[in-house]
Amino acid sequence: MSTEIKLNEIKDPKFLKTLSYKELNLLCAQIRQEIIDKTSINGGHIASNLGVVELTIALHRVFDFSKDKLLLDVGHQCYTHKILTGRSLEHLRKKDGVSGFEKRHESIYDCFEAGHSSTSLSSAYGMAVVRDNEKANYDVVAVIGDGALTSGLAFEGLNNIGQGATKVIIILNDNEMSISKSTGGFARFLQRIRASVSYNKRKKAYQRIMCKTRLGLGIYNLSARIKNKFKHMFLSSNIFDTMGFVYLGPVDGHNIKAMEKALTQAKKSTRSVVIHVLTIKGKGYKYAEEDKLGKWHGVPSFNKETGEFNGDKSHKSWSQEISSLVYKKMKENEKIILINPAMIQGSALENIFSDFKGRSYDVGICESHAFTMASGIALNGYHPIISIYSTFMQRAFDEIQQDLARMNLSSTILIDRSGLVGEDGETHQGIFDEAMLYTMPNVTISMPSNVTEAKVLLDESMNDHAVFAIRYPRDKVYNYGEDVNFKYGEWLNVNDMDSDTVIISFGPIINVLKERIKNTRIINAIYQKPILKSNVEALLKYKRIIIYNPYATKEGFINNLIEMLALYNYRGEISFLAVKEDFIKAASQNEQMHEVKVSLDDLESLLNTPKGVQ
Amino acid sequence: MSTEIKLNEIKDPKFLKTLSYKELNLLCAQIRQEIIDKTSINGGHIASNLGVVELTIALHRVFDFSKDKLLLDVGHQCYTHKILTGRSLEHLRKKDGVSGFEKRHESIYDCFEAGHSSTSLSSAYGMAVVRDNEKANYDVVAVIGDGALTSGLAFEGLNNIGQGATKVIIILNDNEMSISKSTGGFARFLQRIRASVSYNKRKKAYQRIMCKTRLGLGIYNLSARIKNKFKHMFLSSNIFDTMGFVYLGPVDGHNIKAMEKALTQAKKSTRSVVIHVLTIKGKGYKYAEEDKLGKWHGVPSFNKETGEFNGDKSHKSWSQEISSLVYKKMKENEKIILINPAMIQGSALENIFSDFKGRSYDVGICESHAFTMASGIALNGYHPIISIYSTFMQRAFDEIQQDLARMNLSSTILIDRSGLVGEDGETHQGIFDEAMLYTMPNVTISMPSNVTEAKVLLDESMNDHAVFAIRYPRDKVYNYGEDVNFKYGEWLNVNDMDSDTVIISFGPIINVLKERIKNTRIINAIYQKPILKSNVEALLKYKRIIIYNPYATKEGFINNLIEMLALYNYRGEISFLAVKEDFIKAASQNEQMHEVKVSLDDLESLLNTPKGVQ
Repeated sequence: MSTEIKLNEIKDPKFLKTLSYKELNLLCAQIRQEIIDKTSINGGHIASNLGVVELTIALHRVFDFSKDKLLLDVGHQCYTHKILTGRSLEHLRKKDGVSGFEKRHESIYDCFEAGHSSTSLSSAYGMAVVRDNEKANYDVVAVIGDGALTSGLAFEGLNNIGQGATKVIIILNDNEMSISKSTGGFARFLQRIRASVSYNKRKKAYQRIMCKTRLGLGIYNLSARIKNKFKHMFLSSNIFDTMGFVYLGPVDGHNIKAMEKALTQAKKSTRSVVIHVLTIKGKGYKYAEEDKLGKWHGVPSFNKETGEFNGDKSHKSWSQEISSLVYKKMKENEKIILINPAMIQGSALENIFSDFKGRSYDVGICESHAFTMASGIALNGYHPIISIYSTFMQRAFDEIQQDLARMNLSSTILIDRSGLVGEDGETHQGIFDEAMLYTMPNVTISMPSNVTEAKVLLDESMNDHAVFAIRYPRDKVYNYGEDVNFKYGEWLNVNDMDSDTVIISFGPIINVLKERIKNTRIINAIYQKPILKSNVEALLKYKRIIIYNPYATKEGFINNLIEMLALYNYRGEISFLAVKEDFIKAASQNEQMHEVKVSLDDLESLLNTPKGVQ
Repeated sequence: MSTEIKLNEIKDPKFLKTLSYKELNLLCAQIRQEIIDKTSINGGHIASNLGVVELTIALHRVFDFSKDKLLLDVGHQCYTHKILTGRSLEHLRKKDGVSGFEKRHESIYDCFEAGHSSTSLSSAYGMAVVRDNEKANYDVVAVIGDGALTSGLAFEGLNNIGQGATKVIIILNDNEMSISKSTGGFARFLQRIRASVSYNKRKKAYQRIMCKTRLGLGIYNLSARIKNKFKHMFLSSNIFDTMGFVYLGPVDGHNIKAMEKALTQAKKSTRSVVIHVLTIKGKGYKYAEEDKLGKWHGVPSFNKETGEFNGDKSHKSWSQEISSLVYKKMKENEKIILINPAMIQGSALENIFSDFKGRSYDVGICESHAFTMASGIALNGYHPIISIYSTFMQRAFDEIQQDLARMNLSSTILIDRSGLVGEDGETHQGIFDEAMLYTMPNVTISMPSNVTEAKVLLDESMNDHAVFAIRYPRDKVYNYGEDVNFKYGEWLNVNDMDSDTVIISFGPIINVLKERIKNTRIINAIYQKPILKSNVEALLKYKRIIIYNPYATKEGFINNLIEMLALYNYRGEISFLAVKEDFIKAASQNEQMHEVKVSLDDLESLLNTPKGVQ
């Protein structure tokens, strides 16, 4: 082979073994161009994918992942793997297109699925345990970033793998970034390794010096003999080998040959291995490579030449508007501290972080810690605000319940990307948080339909209501609302129609409902929890109650309202539309609304048909 | 002072500063005796408390915890602290008695509350952040065990504290045990420190040797000069100082003077400190001291002389019976792997762990890892069984949902201690898991009323039902059941009464209901999720439906059944009894049932009164 490879004709990665390093480097350039081209059209995770092109090729040359297992943590680095295993990025992240993560149904080369960070080590360990029970002979390889490694789950995985005889190969893809710059003591440790020369070289140099001289040899032997008195101090300077791993590295993650050498060594090892690979996030695309803030982590479609993102710039996002409200609040009340787990960019918190140093904390991918840290803040008299994506809040069920709700601690949760999220697909849907929080005592759940309501809710959340959650969608703001005020728990009439039927809904969809449905009373149930008795009593006069919740499953608000109506012996008809309880695949938000039957068309058809079992 | 101190006359810990070391040692003996005496009557956490008597005294001598903050991780080591701050263990863990954990309402010396492990570091960090914002001047001290430190949450806390300028003092109470023997690479690391002489001594000895000789000095200076080429290897051999902490220790945890010295040094430090304290779990009480299995971690009342536990020995516990069923299942099917997070003793799994090595995994206090590891096992073709306490399963919401349910992976969850748990109180109630799992797609929830049903459920869980949860209470088994079979999702008639009213219930309470309520049809809803349409349709003929769930809040099964009935336009009366949505305080299980109004008396009174809003 000497000419260009046709990427769309690749069937499997076997051809890689026939290429020279020169040809491989050419291939890398081609793959990079393909990633840039396709994400510029479809959007996606560009920077992380550009960083691992050589690494992925080296992996596929040393291992055979039709038998060996490859677990890509999160999956934000799977594009090269997809191309090399015969998948096109043509419809990346679109309805029925290739997913932005590993997916078992797509290929025999995908044995794993993730989307939330830091699961690959634990899952790899489970796979390896089965392999050893079956006395089978293949490798289990997990690729995890330095950002993902700071999560507690990854540490639990490391800790459990390190102790045992079950071998797992861990590739630490260290680019000094998770989504933005990695934080924490652990990041500092990696930094120190990077700053020095190769660890193994140092170790060898040390042994060499020690063994060359008499005194050195004496000390060296002494250290081995006398109850390990010196040995640990001399020879173990690394968290990974302390925990039981063979540590190899650091290796240049853009040098295929060097990585092959390390991977081959790892393959031969009888013990679990950590290979520390240094890569450059965004490599090969100027804008992504220079970005240190994480702007190029997950992107919408963009202009390749200018690096400008496409999309509606005439409207701000909910994230931006909520961030502005919080900024003002923090200006007027200095006893507020904001916590965010690694999503400063995504939740548009840059201004807060730059202007409120010491009062804003990026805790890294540590959602559990975020809420328990918040408990300490509240226990000590300040008001914590935790800004978090709906889907990642799931990581903190116990901490929200035990460390905030149980102790009745006044705190605000800003739940970003609630509801259907579009292209990120089934691992990122924000449709479960309402039901999740509904199971907990001492939690308020709310969702504003416009920015004015959001401000009232944020103000109210500062009062003594224990945990106060404000949900908002992954969407633009089209409605700022008029001057409005409402008490804790109160619902609002959207119109004053005198109809037999009433529609209960909430969130930004209220603005559309108001325009589109003219002949039916609509109520804006801003507070989904608690449901005041007075709100329920006001419904009893209607012959038909329709509850419309396109932002969550029925397990929270809807079921609770129905239960309350049942206890009131309500005798009218109850129907509802909610997001179906399922893991909803990637598509546009609008496509998803139609697919799960919570679109306005579905609502209108429900309004116009008699009720039956759904 | 020279005579014995009257423990029940202590008001606050100030008197400690007036005592000599001899007197302090006498006091330690007295406190140990008090702990043994009172736990022998009330039950409680004896071994962990006996280990920290000297440590607690040293802490109260060096710090003033009416200003400084003391966070006791979990709280299983709070008894000495309670005694020294004027609280009696007389009614320990009983209704209206002193709690077995730190509780803010009990004392100004309790600034923190826990019950679930590994929260103290994150919460301490939050407190310290507030202190620094207020420019106040006091210390925040967290005491955490080596077992608790293996949890991912603790690592997240360490990682976030280690990076910053906000000072926290961490006391690592290292007894080589969490509840039973600590596991994991991290435990091995601590073991290595313990095995060698004091780390600091080694470091000094090393410096001394190096600086005494010319070559040594040469190397030592070289290391400091040449780009840190050797330095890291020579001087940093410890995870804690790598992560940014000042590391002090190991210190003998039964030597008050030595600990005072370390604590005073920590107080002076401007950076965060880890003091590594070595203690002996159970110290001073033979049976507890010798126990390596965790039998003496949490105990019922016992005979002080013989070490024999009190309580009904004529019946086995649900934990034991379920464990026997699993044992048999694992014998017949070698593709089953059992995972348990640090509760082998509590869930009576000793036989499984000793007879199925390589197929049974104690992952330590790593609930999240437990479920993600299970995903790897299932992805690789085996069937994972995860045995876990209801309350601790909350730590794994996201992992159950994303890594098992989302991928439709066949797996069994054995949920021990579901329902009201008695004396462990509000942090340990098993009343939320049903609602929590109800929010997730692809999850089956069941609860057997007897062992025969449990066997059918366990068998069924091996089939392809994705996540299959079997709940059972913290109770003895009084009913083994007759030969029975039922299909997936099916409910059973408990009697054939021809009544207008029907009672829907499940779990072991069914056996009591059957005896006590003779004139009403009773249905055993063994499966709480899914609810088959056929089950609902069979209810429509009744004029009144009473749902009785003394094992969980209404947010799961009850609300869903009511919602289904509403969609069927059911026009009869619906009432229910469920555990109220609250954090239920310590008392006996029976007292708790009456307190939250789910006792059989409450059911009978509901049966006999007309329905109204509850």
